[in-house]
Amino acid sequence: MNDFVHVEKVRFRDLDPMGHVNNAVFLTFLEQARVAFFAEVGAATGLEDMNMIVARVEIDFKAPVRLGQEVEVSVRASRFGTKSFDLTYELGVDGEPVAEAKSVQVAYDYGRREPMPLPPEWRDKLTTIAA
Amino acid sequence: MNDFVHVEKVRFRDLDPMGHVNNAVFLTFLEQARVAFFAEVGAATGLEDMNMIVARVEIDFKAPVRLGQEVEVSVRASRFGTKSFDLTYELGVDGEPVAEAKSVQVAYDYGRREPMPLPPEWRDKLTTIAA
Amino acid sequence: MNDFVHVEKVRFRDLDPMGHVNNAVFLTFLEQARVAFFAEVGAATGLEDMNMIVARVEIDFKAPVRLGQEVEVSVRASRFGTKSFDLTYELGVDGEPVAEAKSVQVAYDYGRREPMPLPPEWRDKLTTIAA
Amino acid sequence: MNDFVHVEKVRFRDLDPMGHVNNAVFLTFLEQARVAFFAEVGAATGLEDMNMIVARVEIDFKAPVRLGQEVEVSVRASRFGTKSFDLTYELGVDGEPVAEAKSVQVAYDYGRREPMPLPPEWRDKLTTIAA
Repeated sequence: MNDFVHVEKVRFRDLDPMGHVNNAVFLTFLEQARVAFFAEVGAATGLEDMNMIVARVEIDFKAPVRLGQEVEVSVRASRFGTKSFDLTYELGVDGEPVAEAKSVQVAYDYGRREPMPLPPEWRDKLTTIAA
Repeated sequence: MNDFVHVEKVRFRDLDPMGHVNNAVFLTFLEQARVAFFAEVGAATGLEDMNMIVARVEIDFKAPVRLGQEVEVSVRASRFGTKSFDLTYELGVDGEPVAEAKSVQVAYDYGRREPMPLPPEWRDKLTTIAA
Repeated sequence: MNDFVHVEKVRFRDLDPMGHVNNAVFLTFLEQARVAFFAEVGAATGLEDMNMIVARVEIDFKAPVRLGQEVEVSVRASRFGTKSFDLTYELGVDGEPVAEAKSVQVAYDYGRREPMPLPPEWRDKLTTIAA
Repeated sequence: MNDFVHVEKVRFRDLDPMGHVNNAVFLTFLEQARVAFFAEVGAATGLEDMNMIVARVEIDFKAPVRLGQEVEVSVRASRFGTKSFDLTYELGVDGEPVAEAKSVQVAYDYGRREPMPLPPEWRDKLTTIAA
C-alpha cells in the first residue's frame, strides 16, 4: 500500500525572519499535495470540480524546513463519513519527518451553497491509489 | 475577564480563486494576533525575544471571509505546562464566528538550540490581560 | 491638490530572512492602495467591476520597511491614454520615503477577453480626488 | 550564448480571485531565479553571502499564468556599473512569453550598513554562464 507523494520545493519567500519556512506555508504545502492528489486520482480535474470545503486542519511541526530543501508530502484518505472525509499527511525532508497533519473536508454544493452528501465515487477514487 | 483582541484587515492578496481568504492565511492571522498579544503583555518586545516555537496548530473553519472585511482575533493563554503553553483563539467578522483555533508553543533556547523550561514570568505576563 | 492615501500595516509574514519586508510584498501594498483608491472614487465597487489588467509595474526601493511599521501609500492617476492609464505611488513610513512606483493599467473586457477603450467616466472618477 | 534558466511551478496559493497568478508573485519568481542564478555561478552560496540590495524592479506582464503551468525564467546579467548591476529576465510558459523584467542590484556591506563597490569577481562569475 503506497500513499500518494507530492514534492514541493521551498521558495525564499516561504521563509520568515527566523530563517526557516513560516508555519502558514505548511498549509500551502498541504493544499498543493491535496490538489495534486485529487488530480492524480481523478477526483477533480480543475478548480471548478473541487466541490469541497476544508473544515478543519491540525498540524504538528516536528522540525524546521530551510531554503534549498524539498518537502515530500505523502497524503492518503484516512476516514470517510456521510458528508465529510479526512486526509492524513506526512511531511519529510530527506527521509526525516518535519510535520504531520490532518485535514477534514466537507462535500459542498457551490451552486446551492450548502453541504451535500459525499458522492460515493469519491471514496473509490480517493482510495484507489493506496490499493 | 477580557481576552486580548487583535484586528486584521483582509488584503486582496489573501484571497484565492474561490474568492475568499485562503485557509493558510488564517495561520498568518493567528500569528499576527500572537505577536501583538506578546507585545501587549510584555512577553516579547521584538523578534529577538520570541523564545518559543509553534509546535502544533489546530483550526476549525466556520465561515468564509471576504475582501473588505476585518477579522477580530481574540486570544488568551489557555494552558501552561512545564515546557509549553497553549493559546486559544476565536476569529470573528461583525460578531459572527469565522474560525476557532488553538496553538501549542514550546519555550526554546535559540542559543543552545533546544527546548527550555517555561520561564515563570511568562505565565504571569500572559495571564495579566485576562485578569 | 491631495492624493489618495492608503495605510497598510506590516505583517510578520511580510518579512523575509533579511528581517525586512520582502520586495514582492510592495506590489501587494500597491494593489491594496489601488483597490482602495478605485473603491474611494467609485471606479469599482467590487471585484467584478475591476475591468482592467495591470500591464506594467516599476518600483524603486528607497529604504527597508520593518515589523511594526505602517506604510502610507499615496496614489494618483498620472496619465490617461485611449486604452490605458498610469497610477503613480509614493510609499512612506513616518514621513520618510521608502519606495516610489508606477503601474500601467489597460482597460479590459473580461467578457470578450480583449482590451477595450478606456471608459470616459473613469478619467473623471480617477481625477476627482485630486481636485 | 545561453542564459541561465530556472523553472518555477505555479502553486494554487499563487492565484488570486481572477484565477491567474497574482502580479506580486512574479517578483517571487524573479527572486527564485535570481537566488538560483547566484548559486549556480558561485556568486552566493547561501543567504549570508547575498551582499546586495534590490534597488529597482520593472516588469511587463504579457499574458496570464494559470494553475498547473510551469514558468521558465531565463536570467542574465545585462549591465555592470561601479556599485550596481542589472539582471534581465524573460518569463515564458510552453515557449510563449508571459513577462519581461529587469532588476537593479546594489552591492551592499551589511556589516557597515552601506553600499560598497561591486566586487570585481562578481562580474566574472555572473557572466560565465553566458559564455
